[in-house]
Amino acid sequence: MAISVNHQVQPEKWLIAPHVIRLETSIIREILKISSQPGVISFAGGLPAPELFPLEDLKRICGEVIEKYGPAGFQYALSRGVPVFVKLLAERATVSGCPTEPENVLVTAGAQQAIELVARAFIDPGDYVIVENPTYVGALQAFNYYQARYVPIEMDKEGMRVEQVETSIRKYNPKLIYTVSNFQNPTGITMSEERRQALVDVAVKYNIPLVDDNPYREIRFAGTPATQLKAIGGDAVIELHTFSKTVAPGLRIGWINGPKPILSQFEKVKQCTDLHTNSFSQYVIYEFVKQGLMDPQIEKIKANYLEKRNTMLHSLEKYFPAGVTWTNPEGGLFLWLELPKGISAKEMLPRAIERGVAYVYGSPFFAGGGGENTMRLGFSNPSVSDIVEGVKRLGTLLKEKV
Amino acid sequence: MAISVNHQVQPEKWLIAPHVIRLETSIIREILKISSQPGVISFAGGLPAPELFPLEDLKRICGEVIEKYGPAGFQYALSRGVPVFVKLLAERATVSGCPTEPENVLVTAGAQQAIELVARAFIDPGDYVIVENPTYVGALQAFNYYQARYVPIEMDKEGMRVEQVETSIRKYNPKLIYTVSNFQNPTGITMSEERRQALVDVAVKYNIPLVDDNPYREIRFAGTPATQLKAIGGDAVIELHTFSKTVAPGLRIGWINGPKPILSQFEKVKQCTDLHTNSFSQYVIYEFVKQGLMDPQIEKIKANYLEKRNTMLHSLEKYFPAGVTWTNPEGGLFLWLELPKGISAKEMLPRAIERGVAYVYGSPFFAGGGGENTMRLGFSNPSVSDIVEGVKRLGTLLKEKV
Repeated sequence: MAISVNHQVQPEKWLIAPHVIRLETSIIREILKISSQPGVISFAGGLPAPELFPLEDLKRICGEVIEKYGPAGFQYALSRGVPVFVKLLAERATVSGCPTEPENVLVTAGAQQAIELVARAFIDPGDYVIVENPTYVGALQAFNYYQARYVPIEMDKEGMRVEQVETSIRKYNPKLIYTVSNFQNPTGITMSEERRQALVDVAVKYNIPLVDDNPYREIRFAGTPATQLKAIGGDAVIELHTFSKTVAPGLRIGWINGPKPILSQFEKVKQCTDLHTNSFSQYVIYEFVKQGLMDPQIEKIKANYLEKRNTMLHSLEKYFPAGVTWTNPEGGLFLWLELPKGISAKEMLPRAIERGVAYVYGSPFFAGGGGENTMRLGFSNPSVSDIVEGVKRLGTLLKEKV
Repeated sequence: MAISVNHQVQPEKWLIAPHVIRLETSIIREILKISSQPGVISFAGGLPAPELFPLEDLKRICGEVIEKYGPAGFQYALSRGVPVFVKLLAERATVSGCPTEPENVLVTAGAQQAIELVARAFIDPGDYVIVENPTYVGALQAFNYYQARYVPIEMDKEGMRVEQVETSIRKYNPKLIYTVSNFQNPTGITMSEERRQALVDVAVKYNIPLVDDNPYREIRFAGTPATQLKAIGGDAVIELHTFSKTVAPGLRIGWINGPKPILSQFEKVKQCTDLHTNSFSQYVIYEFVKQGLMDPQIEKIKANYLEKRNTMLHSLEKYFPAGVTWTNPEGGLFLWLELPKGISAKEMLPRAIERGVAYVYGSPFFAGGGGENTMRLGFSNPSVSDIVEGVKRLGTLLKEKV
């Protein structure tokens, strides 16, 4: 039978759902593409330091997983996650101060899928979500898909200004409260103890799910550990975790710790989304944790990032003009800068890339608009010498602007 | 500061979106849980034979990937997929008769995520989808989430009765046509050459996306290879692939081959869903394919499944009562049975499990209802001797019913 290829196909006229058409490409991912040009020092990403990936351990463990678990590491698995891994996650959470049972846990393809599951489960078109202003742009992207509206709450150096939350709840009847309580992306700010208690109280009072997106907690290289929202709030809190910042983002392993009836709903959605998370990677991280490699790995990361943060702070002092201010995070991956009013970080970006340095401008992080004079600098990925050189290049450019 | 755990939290009263509440747990996954009890021979799953996983090769390749690609295998990656892998997929598709460029490709977390992306992109609540009756229940689950309505098209031994499609298009104006053209799940039927051409013609004539879910094509152990819908239809066809049935489902690697403007839309959704697919697993499968291990692996699978299919067919002849009919698939993982009218495969299942044998009853595969007297038997996962024993147990039970 002759094959006829018909040239009248017009896929560009296929009817894509409007909320997909409206979806914008992630600005960070676009900047990452541009900034991966050779010669560009990039502060744009939240990429872990490549020199910290525990390659030798992972190599050994991959072999061990195959020897020890055989076909199980490659077969279809439960939507909740590989049972021994789920159990281990629950035990570790319990030890860290948040009593957790396996039924509270769902393993996800990174924290982004955890955010996406939360968004799907709770947001109907037009629903309000309380967010910090600014907040993580990947969360806004996931929420936008479900046509969320936002109640952006101002931040100061203690985090979200929780005293504004109750009024907002009364006015907008939001579906959920979303916070990045530790070393926030993008600002690096950590919520104070008083605010944590107050935020849990108001979430409980109005019975609104409090989502704590918590990828950076373990990477604290200065100051005193904060009490976790989940430890204070228990079932009032849905906590989102990831191994992307501690072991390896490429393995796409995150998890949710939340109330059992809610996790059952998430599990159904997970099932029809992608059946289950990569089982081999779950076994690899399970063994990594079980063999006691996590704590030394985190110590390595903290030492590395502390040096890089310090280098960035010193370089900013040295090369940046007066009138620019920045945060001093006690952990995590990001510094947040405010330029003098009137300077647009977005407009400046192409010039910066010409000079061989990239960053993410701050405006997309603001659900409520504004922030044109802000930018996020990630210090985790570049080398110490590149941090000095990149800040110098950016400072030189800024001095021409100020 | 004292920690107060508030006991008034009522997560069961949180407002979950109605379409999530409505979502049903996958019947297959539930049956898989039940049938994994010790002593139960399970024909319920579409699980590959565990003895076929290329454990030694995968172990060696995991080590090689880490040595060769270093941190890249563990770092964040592009939403489209790891570029060398995407290029290889496009080249292999081209060689197989479907001219494909890297821009036509998106790597997904298994074929289930590919289906989910299609569903998201095209289905608004109430939209019609043309499906085979019966069809893959995981696709129905993904489509149900977006509140699809169905136009179920009858099947015969040549597959979907395509002559009914044009009338249905005029009547229902469907958003897409979904088919499993090769060794269909659940029936094992392959669409005839004439029907393939006719289906593409009608999809092109009305410019409706034709989705060919194609996980089983390579596992043909008898008969003549069919011309692929994508080879006939080009950009009229969105083809969904997976490595789950050839290498390992636990690695969750699938991919989409479709028109460029549509793939750009899928890419945006992929981004906000889970950023990108596991990069380490992409490198592992890339090396597996590049090292020429795919063809011998597929030969091993075909020999194994042919023997198992034959064993099942012989056992059905031997142990089953008159009045039961079944398909004789030339590939894939499934046989499809029709019991005498009046026997409910669903009602019989608990009894079958008591007797130590499990299957999936057929009714959930029918978007249009019916099929109470049908069942799907998967022959890929159990051993040859378990196939004989399981069919015997089921036949004994059935003889009591007929």
